[in-house]
Amino acid sequence: MLPTSNMVPMAEYDDDIAVKDLGEGRFAADLLGEWTVGGGLNGGYLLGVIGNAIRELIPAKPDPITISAFYLGPGRPGPAEVHTEIKRDGGSLAVVAADLVQEGEKRISVLATYADRSRIDGEVRTTAIEPVLPPLEECVSTHAMGPAMLEIAPMYRKFELRFPPNRVGWAQGEPSGEGVIEAWFRFRDDRPTDAFSLITIADLLPPVAFDLGLPGWSPTLELTVHVRGVPAPGWLKVRHATRNLAGGMFEEDCEIWDSEGRLVAQSRQLARPPRA
Amino acid sequence: MLPTSNMVPMAEYDDDIAVKDLGEGRFAADLLGEWTVGGGLNGGYLLGVIGNAIRELIPAKPDPITISAFYLGPGRPGPAEVHTEIKRDGGSLAVVAADLVQEGEKRISVLATYADRSRIDGEVRTTAIEPVLPPLEECVSTHAMGPAMLEIAPMYRKFELRFPPNRVGWAQGEPSGEGVIEAWFRFRDDRPTDAFSLITIADLLPPVAFDLGLPGWSPTLELTVHVRGVPAPGWLKVRHATRNLAGGMFEEDCEIWDSEGRLVAQSRQLARPPRA
Repeated sequence: MLPTSNMVPMAEYDDDIAVKDLGEGRFAADLLGEWTVGGGLNGGYLLGVIGNAIRELIPAKPDPITISAFYLGPGRPGPAEVHTEIKRDGGSLAVVAADLVQEGEKRISVLATYADRSRIDGEVRTTAIEPVLPPLEECVSTHAMGPAMLEIAPMYRKFELRFPPNRVGWAQGEPSGEGVIEAWFRFRDDRPTDAFSLITIADLLPPVAFDLGLPGWSPTLELTVHVRGVPAPGWLKVRHATRNLAGGMFEEDCEIWDSEGRLVAQSRQLARPPRA
Repeated sequence: MLPTSNMVPMAEYDDDIAVKDLGEGRFAADLLGEWTVGGGLNGGYLLGVIGNAIRELIPAKPDPITISAFYLGPGRPGPAEVHTEIKRDGGSLAVVAADLVQEGEKRISVLATYADRSRIDGEVRTTAIEPVLPPLEECVSTHAMGPAMLEIAPMYRKFELRFPPNRVGWAQGEPSGEGVIEAWFRFRDDRPTDAFSLITIADLLPPVAFDLGLPGWSPTLELTVHVRGVPAPGWLKVRHATRNLAGGMFEEDCEIWDSEGRLVAQSRQLARPPRA
């Protein structure tokens, strides 16, 4: 089939999150090592795989509205299954539970509410303030990452981030201490950043703990993403911030803004700071 | 047994959320009509019942750290069961799934991470800013609510809220439009507001939609609470705010601050505004 103007000629993300229906609510997936970052598979990518299985389970309600993931153990490259259970499917919403299972062990447990988004859109009244980022051409691209870095974090080949030059101190041993990391985002093949992909994009930036001077692996306990709109075409702005490191944990709030200045997703995760 | 200084003579909240172990991960509860607000049982109360069943299931890890509730249908006064499943219990954390079931139907599905909080506390670095509320004696108490109001919302007999007098326009047909509702909180019997009870307290204030001029029932799709510390004795400050009404939904962010100025809980819910 020839690509049309509505199709993406090479939608790598869709290939990467593909699942195969095994019947009885079970789906097979192949978790790709290409999505590795710092020794583990990226949580946003895994959420994309699980979210895609849920979408195949309930095709009449294909749009994630809110999805909560509880991370039980690290996902590893290789075969996996997603086991789903419909908790409720009635009216305009469906609620589904899903587990990502590898080697007989649950690695992630999810609850999610899905809908047909075309049936629920409504009024918009936003008081949230759009982040101001320098123009793309003034920003520092992940495409400039060296091969040693890409070996540790091959995930950064999948998409491009462009960081404000005055906001990359954390990458140079000079964290600001503010707990903020923000960047422009696009897929490397310019696949449109549709509403679905926001559940992955909400967890692709480096952990905000880096900007607190706490580099290293920050294991996520739980991540909840609210998809609030369909992004307009173009680069997205993604902003991660934390305001409270306490109780042995920090929260990471993410906002995703589209090219028309709309807040299209909000997420919050609870993570443990890296061990000193 | 006589009350000691460490005990609460009349801990109404603990009685109200009591569950009975039926074995095989099932617990019986009696949902009290006293927790009704505007025609339905309060979601924070129901989360307390479910959270209590999880606590009984894994007594060595009694402290909720993060809990996500997906609301499938309204809980009603009367008998109910909580069906639990341990997803993982290892190291310092346990993850549990639970359903609140009434009349053979799932009403709420939950995922939660529990721990022994005494084993995970650590460093505190908060940049969040504590809300400023007028002194208690200058605030408007829910104890001043009339009998007609208490008949619609008997829940307000269970605890006391004190609202800043310049912040109650929403109750008088003059919403500020800012989407903020904040108040002092205590249980009416002065039961200590321990870390556990924060999962209920995060959902007790009137919906912030009231302050946007959208009074009425705002059904919650999902609520996630992060318990971040053990509150010091005394009144709590509870602040609810929304920044984005969009996609037919609004988020409601809640912060709970203790009497020593620590941010002890954060929560976010996704809700539908009342039908016009």
